[in-house]
Parts: sequence; C-alpha cells; structure tokens
Amino acid sequence: MSGTGPASNKTATLRHLLARPEISFLMEAHNGLSAKLVERAGFEGIWASGLSIAAALGVRDSNEASWTQVLEVAEFMSDATGIPILLDGDTGYGNFNSVRRLVRKLEQRGIAGVCIEDKLFPKTNSFVRGGTQPLADAEEFAGKIQAAKASQHDPDFVVVARTEALIAGEGPAEALRRAELYRCAGADAILIHSARSDPSEILAFKAEWGDRLPVVIVPTTYYTTPTEVFAEEGISTVVWANHLMRSALRAMQLTAATIHSEQHLRNVEVTVASLAEVFELQGEDELAEAEQRWLPRRNAPRR
Amino acid sequence: MSGTGPASNKTATLRHLLARPEISFLMEAHNGLSAKLVERAGFEGIWASGLSIAAALGVRDSNEASWTQVLEVAEFMSDATGIPILLDGDTGYGNFNSVRRLVRKLEQRGIAGVCIEDKLFPKTNSFVRGGTQPLADAEEFAGKIQAAKASQHDPDFVVVARTEALIAGEGPAEALRRAELYRCAGADAILIHSARSDPSEILAFKAEWGDRLPVVIVPTTYYTTPTEVFAEEGISTVVWANHLMRSALRAMQLTAATIHSEQHLRNVEVTVASLAEVFELQGEDELAEAEQRWLPRRNAPRR
Amino acid sequence: MSGTGPASNKTATLRHLLARPEISFLMEAHNGLSAKLVERAGFEGIWASGLSIAAALGVRDSNEASWTQVLEVAEFMSDATGIPILLDGDTGYGNFNSVRRLVRKLEQRGIAGVCIEDKLFPKTNSFVRGGTQPLADAEEFAGKIQAAKASQHDPDFVVVARTEALIAGEGPAEALRRAELYRCAGADAILIHSARSDPSEILAFKAEWGDRLPVVIVPTTYYTTPTEVFAEEGISTVVWANHLMRSALRAMQLTAATIHSEQHLRNVEVTVASLAEVFELQGEDELAEAEQRWLPRRNAPRR
Amino acid sequence: MSGTGPASNKTATLRHLLARPEISFLMEAHNGLSAKLVERAGFEGIWASGLSIAAALGVRDSNEASWTQVLEVAEFMSDATGIPILLDGDTGYGNFNSVRRLVRKLEQRGIAGVCIEDKLFPKTNSFVRGGTQPLADAEEFAGKIQAAKASQHDPDFVVVARTEALIAGEGPAEALRRAELYRCAGADAILIHSARSDPSEILAFKAEWGDRLPVVIVPTTYYTTPTEVFAEEGISTVVWANHLMRSALRAMQLTAATIHSEQHLRNVEVTVASLAEVFELQGEDELAEAEQRWLPRRNAPRR
Repeated sequence: MSGTGPASNKTATLRHLLARPEISFLMEAHNGLSAKLVERAGFEGIWASGLSIAAALGVRDSNEASWTQVLEVAEFMSDATGIPILLDGDTGYGNFNSVRRLVRKLEQRGIAGVCIEDKLFPKTNSFVRGGTQPLADAEEFAGKIQAAKASQHDPDFVVVARTEALIAGEGPAEALRRAELYRCAGADAILIHSARSDPSEILAFKAEWGDRLPVVIVPTTYYTTPTEVFAEEGISTVVWANHLMRSALRAMQLTAATIHSEQHLRNVEVTVASLAEVFELQGEDELAEAEQRWLPRRNAPRR
Repeated sequence: MSGTGPASNKTATLRHLLARPEISFLMEAHNGLSAKLVERAGFEGIWASGLSIAAALGVRDSNEASWTQVLEVAEFMSDATGIPILLDGDTGYGNFNSVRRLVRKLEQRGIAGVCIEDKLFPKTNSFVRGGTQPLADAEEFAGKIQAAKASQHDPDFVVVARTEALIAGEGPAEALRRAELYRCAGADAILIHSARSDPSEILAFKAEWGDRLPVVIVPTTYYTTPTEVFAEEGISTVVWANHLMRSALRAMQLTAATIHSEQHLRNVEVTVASLAEVFELQGEDELAEAEQRWLPRRNAPRR
Repeated sequence: MSGTGPASNKTATLRHLLARPEISFLMEAHNGLSAKLVERAGFEGIWASGLSIAAALGVRDSNEASWTQVLEVAEFMSDATGIPILLDGDTGYGNFNSVRRLVRKLEQRGIAGVCIEDKLFPKTNSFVRGGTQPLADAEEFAGKIQAAKASQHDPDFVVVARTEALIAGEGPAEALRRAELYRCAGADAILIHSARSDPSEILAFKAEWGDRLPVVIVPTTYYTTPTEVFAEEGISTVVWANHLMRSALRAMQLTAATIHSEQHLRNVEVTVASLAEVFELQGEDELAEAEQRWLPRRNAPRR
Repeated sequence: MSGTGPASNKTATLRHLLARPEISFLMEAHNGLSAKLVERAGFEGIWASGLSIAAALGVRDSNEASWTQVLEVAEFMSDATGIPILLDGDTGYGNFNSVRRLVRKLEQRGIAGVCIEDKLFPKTNSFVRGGTQPLADAEEFAGKIQAAKASQHDPDFVVVARTEALIAGEGPAEALRRAELYRCAGADAILIHSARSDPSEILAFKAEWGDRLPVVIVPTTYYTTPTEVFAEEGISTVVWANHLMRSALRAMQLTAATIHSEQHLRNVEVTVASLAEVFELQGEDELAEAEQRWLPRRNAPRR
C-alpha cells in the first residue's frame, strides 16, 4: 500500500482540518485495510478509534490490548495511507510520562495527532455502564496535555483534549471549566463528548465556549441531527466514530451465516469484493513492477 | 471475549474434523472479531488466512508482516474463540528451524494446527502473477514437515502440508509425488491447491490419491462446483478461504462512500451493527459482572 | 536454547520452592541470556526483575515499556530455561482485569508465577524518591489477587502478593493488615519489602506473621545480614533481585572504556567469554544436529 | 534515557564516520543499556550486532527472532542514545521487498544505517560450522542494495553491503567482484568479513579495492593485529563486534556462581554497579524533575 511522504505533511493537514472555517470530517478506521478505504472514499482524515481497534482485535474497550499493540495497529494504518490519522489515545495509557512516550512513538510512526480523555486508566467505554467511570483529576489531566505538547518534535503534531464531563454527569459548568484548563495547558482542540440522543448539551457547550479552540464532536448517539446544524454552530470537526467496524461486523455476520447455511460460495461470491480488488488495494501492481526492477531473474523451480 | 478451555480440546476437535467421514468446513477469519463471528455462525473451525490477515493489516500477501506479527493476530483470534484455528502458515516463514519455533509458539497460543506450503520465502499469493513462483525443493520441504511434527508437544496438534504443484504448472504427477513425500514425512493432511475455475485437476488428484491422508481443498476459483461433488469424492475439508475479509471490504467501502457523500449517519445507522451488539460480542457483560466481584467499590470522581 | 518440558513442571517446582521448610533462592535475570546463566549456575528459580528488565531495555522502572513488551522478555526467558520464573509484575499493569489477562498470558508462556505489588500504575521504583509513591487501596488490591487466582488454569501457578506498606512509611501494623487481606484473597505467598539497611522491620513482620503464608524477602538494601538469620526466622524465599544486571552493567562499562582507550581488543579478549562459549549457550550444537536430520542436503552456493 | 534530537543528525554523523580520512570505530551493543554505555564511554557510533542481540534474547544467530523483534530491540537502543546506530541486518530478512520495508522502519526509529550480507535467509553465523553457508546470488543481492537505497527518505541513511565471499571460501577475486557489483548498486560502504586469525586476506582485498568505497572490517578473529595497520591501509571503520555481550556474559556467570555458592550478596555488592548508578543511567533525575513540572500534586495514599 501507499503511505508515502513525510509525516509532516500529515500533521500540517490535520492542523488545517481543525483550524479552517469549514467543517471537517474524520472517518473511523481500525486497521490498514479500513484506513485505506477511508482514504479511497475521499475523506481527508482518519479517526483511529479505540473502540473499533479493540473490537477488531477481539478484546474490550478497556485497555485490554497494551498501548504498544495499539501503536502497532496505528503504524499499519499510517503505512497504508497518505492522509492524517488522529489516534483515539484513550487516557494516554497511564500518567503524563506515559503520554510523553506515546507522543514520541506516534510521531515516529507518522501519526498526525492524538486525542486523550480525562478518565482513569484502564478506561471503560463511554457508552457502557451508564458512563459512570470516574473522571481524572482535572489538574493532573492538564499536566498530561502540557507534557504531550512539550514532547512533540513536529510543531504541527496535534493534541486534542477530550472531556468526559458531560458523560460523567458533571454538568456543563464542569465541562467548560475542564476545557478551559486543557486549553491553557496547550491543547490544540477540545473534543466534547455526549451520550445523549440529542445535541443540546453539545450545542450549549459550544455557545458558551465560542471559538477559544476548535471543537470536535462525535455524534454517535445524536446522529439524527443534521450536520448543517453543527456547521452553523461553528463545530470544527465531526468524527464518524465506529461505523466502518460496525458495517464490517454486520457484513461478516451475514456472509458467515449464508455460507454456513448454504455450504457453498455461489451466492456470496457476487456480494463480496473480488480478489482482483483485494490485490489492487494491497498494491500488487507496485510489487510486480518492483520485482521487474530489483529481482534480476526468477530462481528456477527446484526439485 | 470467550476463548476458554485448554488448547488440547481445540487440537482434538480439529483432528476430528479432518478425520471423520463427513465433510468439514473451515471458515476464514483474520482478526479476533471475525473469528468470533465464525464461531457464532456455527462453524466448527477457523481458517486463519494469510491473505486475509495481510490484507486486513494493510500489507501484501508476501510476508511483509513478520511471523511474530502474524502470530499475534492468531493469538487474538484464539483468545476470542473456543473452536479450533488452522493457521495458514505460508512457507513456515523460513527453513525447518523456523517451523520448529512456529509450532511451539502456536501451541502456546492455543492454535490447533498449521498449514505450510511448498514455496519459497518470501511467498507470493497463489493467485497473482500467474502463480509463477518457484516451488520449494520437495525433500527440503519434507524436512520441514518432519521438523514440525517432531516439535509439537500436544499429539493432536495438526500439520497440514500444502502443495502448490498444480498452481506452479508442475502437473498432477508431481503433485502426487510431493503429497506422498509429505505424507511419509508425517503430515496429518494434504491441502491440494488449484487456481482453475473448475475442479477437474483437484478431483483427478483425489481419485489417484485415495484415502492415504485427508484431503483439504480451497475452492476459491472453482466455487461454482456443488459442495456435494466434493463430499461424494471423499474430500475431508473445504476451506472458505477469504470471504469474510472480502465481505468486510465491500461493506466498509459502501459505508465509507455513503457517509462521505451524505455527510451524516442516518441512512448508515440502520445498516450497521448496533453498539449494543458490539459490546455484547466484546463480552462487556462478563466484565460488568467481574467488576461487581473484584472491584470492591468504585473510586469516586476526583476533581 | 533449551526450555523443554511442559510449564506445569515449572509451576509445581516454584510452588515447592515456596512451601518447603528449607530456605529457597531466586536469582534475578532480565533476558534469555541471563536466565540461562542463572539456570547454569545451579539456581532453582528465576526472578524476572521489573527493574532489571527496564534497565536492560534502556527505560525507567516506571512502566515505560508496555506490559506486552515485558511479556515478550519473559517469554524469551522462559523459552531459554527449564527452571521456574517468577515475574515481577509490578502493579499488574492496571486493574483486576489487566491482571486476569496477564495471568493467562503468563501461563501460556510457561511462566510459573507472578508477583504483584500494592502500588498505583504507573509505578515508581521502591528505591527512588524515598519510596513516596502512594499505596493502592488495599481492598482493590485484594480484588486483584482474587481475580488473578480465579484466572489461572494450572492450579500450581503462583501468585505472590507484595506489600510496599513499610516502604511507604505506613508502619508494621498496616503491613500486617494488608498481608492478611491478601492472604484471605488467595495469595500463595507474601513478599514484604523494605528499603532499610537492616532487616529489623522485616524480621518483626515475620515474627508477627508466623507461618500463615510463605514469606519472600528482597535483601537488596539489608544485604549485610547473614542469610542464616533469614533461614532461622523461617523466611521461605530470598530474592537476589538485580545483581546480574548490575554486574553486566559494570563489566560492560569497563570493557567499553578499555576498548575505547586502547583502540584494540587484545587485553579485552582474555577477559570476556569466548565465541565458542556463546555458541554453546545458544545451542548451536543442537541446531547443527537438527540440520543433519531435517535439511536433507545443503543448497550449493549460487553465483 | 536521552535519545533526543532528530534522526537526521545521526545519519549525517554515521555517514561522516565512514567517509572521513581518520579511522572510525563502532562498538557493539545489544539492548538499550549497553547502547547507553557505548555512548557514555565516548564512542561515536554503535554496532547493533545480530549475534549479540540474538544471544541476549536467548536465541541463536539464525533469525530465530523475527525481524520485528530485532527492530524493537534497535528501537530501544535508538531511544536510549544520541549517537548513530548501524544495524547488523543479516540478509535483510528475506528478499529485496523485505529490505525495502526494513529500511523504512529503521528510518522511523532513528536508526542511522543498516548492513546487509550476501547470504541466504535464514542465516547462520559466520563463525559456526566453518562458515559453509551458501552465498546469495550476487545479482539478486545487488538488487537488494538498489532497493534499499531507493527506499530511504533521508539521503544520509547508510546502506553497508557485507560480502561473505572470503568466509565462504570463494576467494579474493569473487570478493572483489561482489564488492564492485554492490558498489555499482549504490552501497555506501563495503564490509569485508574474514574468519581468519590474521588479516592478510582483508588487507589484500583493501589493496586491490583501493578507495572505491569506504571499507568496514570486523577483527573478531584477527584481533591481535595492531589497529595502526588498519589505519595505515586506509580502512574506514573498525567494528568491535560482540565484546560487550561477551563481557556481560562472563560477569553474570561469575556473579551468579558467587551468589549461588556464598548464598549472600556481601562480596558481590562491591563488584557490581550501584543502584544509584542504575537509576542515573535510566534518567530518574529527569523524571523526578518532570514530575515536579507536570504532576501537580501527588495523590494521597488510599486505604
């Protein structure tokens, strides 16, 4: 797959997506293949979702995979694509020092930015058990943001601070207090998360927040709200957070059920991507060409 | 996710699937999620496809991922499931000594068996560039099989020898000669691969081979042949080799295209798996219960 | 290297070392090579030190390496040896659920037991910054012990509970209270740690504790106390916690300085292990023999 | 540990070490700790030895560790140091395509260069079994060099071509023919290896070769030759190839034997590095200072 070019282009692009007046979209991916498909579909950036990565690996969204296992997934995604990736870095996988290492490792892998959230390690997904997980101490979390910003080599690397104050039931004032703390700590954007089916608390936050920093939202539960509403209110970036994983899940479920009951491939064959398409996505053409250039003569079969 | 129980049950089950008179089916998976879906669909065993794993990671089916990276994928798959996994182990990732290490590592991870093929490392997928990759020296490959069998601790661990003689254009006599060599070396089954759209050379091989060892086939290109034909000819096991990956690819492609053009989730939401379904598959219920048992009291939010 | 035999022998051996009336010794190792040397020196068990592993990797003893990176080190150590390894598992790298995964992964790798300590993740080494790191909530830590014990498949797998109460300045009563809590939670032994240069608080603990569970000690700072004292007081196991790493450090320092100043190897050559010794330790003889058996004929040089 | 600064400084430094008129020295290291000690001793560059890395991991120098496992070792080494690392990359771990991936991954990790040798994968150490391993096809190997050079992003990244022609008994003419092929393919330097106890064939090669490209040598077996001889003959770089690992091995052996027989630490304590020294090398001071800056207040002990 592609993934050419220096990482700095990716960071500059992500920074631009967050800063520009028009609304931006990040589409979820969870492995090299889905990342490639996001790029091919025309998206400008990728959300490397913690939930989706965990689900694809087969574990829970509770830091069951180690941070280096997540890093490896992100590396495959980065190698496969030329557009920026914002990694959903959960809580940063520990304290401020864990975040420092994470930022350096992400930069090396060509990841354009990281989003960290003010919960405790190991995290629980925001949508399970009523989001009752306790929040991190706000000052300690602000220290993480500062440490992250002090660790990056590339000035364009992006650190997004995500507050779970609304989900934890701490109310809008606390959400604003935390967002302002994180802004002062150096965050490049604020991700304000909500588990409600309507965007009222998100929009109230935005109205109060103004344009102090770009605001990122994740309308997984309030998906019925027209995107124009977010654009009009000055939301910077919308994250479509887990839908490729969920569409893959449903499709694989149906395909497995069909093959299991029919015990043949005839009906399935027409619904799935062709092998030729798989090979094209994998970049077999480039390899064939490279073999012509650098593999002077094929070794004869040996018997 | 589940994945309970000792590995030995899995190896005994895989051995039984290969040995029993009725035809068996292995369904492809390439990560923990797809493996879980194969199990849920009712399949008795999983084919951990080298092509699918590579494609999902975002690399080519040419050993671009290291063997320990593939091992880690297989471990996530094994942890997520209770049915046996047969790993598509390409050429064994090196020589006989590489295969010895591989077998020991697979046993530790609860993988029930490995299939290795008589090509050279790094391999090329059988369906690209006309399958022109040279074959391994047959005696050297037989040594690999012997080494693999001598390395397993669990007597039920399965080693399948795959010959690419037909794909390499070496003809049926060579395929039979190789299969017999591999049988004498201790292989538990023979996988005979073909890139034709009809099964004639496969069936000819089977007729000549008889029941010397169970025969495994991969009807990716000759998928129009009714499965009854294979059952009647005494084929042991049919591998549906890459169709979950290919269905995930197509579904993600469509979902990405829809979200990109519509800029909202409303139409997509009804076509993808629900978050509740994702959490159920991840085993959130078990974790919630375990938290009740072992997390004596939730730490209060800290501000 | 060796590393033969099923893991269950290792766990039974470690359990025996802890339970027997005579005092036992665990010698630190931090990679496959040092583990092998511990076994060759005649020790019955290995302490896979968190500090030494971190130092050897080049990082701090503050969970800078991920838990899967530590697991991989432990796996190389286990593969290289036939004696049991007790992994210094820090705090368990997260909560009770992290510990559950850890135990299962350690069992798969043939590690005989794990020691976890009642501090917070990420940890700080007990000997830096005056050991001022806060302790974990005792009940929550007891839940970790329970979860660990409930997760093991091999009944002989060992879980050692380490309390840092003395180092944290919480006093002997708190140390005893915690040890008893951990015993009730199912711990197989108690590691009582002290940073003093005399063993008085350790011996006072033991006198009060009696024989409720085997007691493990780490006399890194009170090393001048004769070992007979510990034996007489009924200490089960003494851990020589980091001395191979520290001796390697000193030796490499001297060797590097010598070669740098002399710009030749003549004086160094006689002080270092011979290449023949390295190859012998690596098991080159076994590989040469295996090549005879499984590599039918050497491929001729190709030009 | 340190390891600050962009990788490009490291590559420029390594390139300078190879190109300058004065002789240069690379000192072996095999993990983060030994790499740090090489830097502290004043060396200008590090040889990340394949043999030493394998031995330290506890495996054989036959590609038993996967290439990503070696990459991870190299990454820890690079993170721990500010001087350039030349990775002993064996055969490149596969074909030209494997080498392409390797180069990109090394650049990301801040490794300054790679040395690949003209043998077959999996390799055998040059000093075992009489060095009888067959050589790679010279043209194919030249293709690997070309592919490596075409893959680097940083123009200063160094690719050293190592020929084993002398060790394989192919004679000086073949060594020269291969070196010239590799030079034309774009190699930045030639490593000419010999297993003799005198440097005659090395010096003969150098005399014939002249200054077409910098020449790197590894006087492990001909270590009695004064270094001045190499300097006078215009050798660019001398690699002290495995002596830190071998000194660590000997020291750990003696320390383990002493502790095992004495059953106390009193005599060992004075011969090993102090804990304070270990903590200093790990950079605990920097972490303590960072905690002051970014960890606003220590959480109180919880009971």
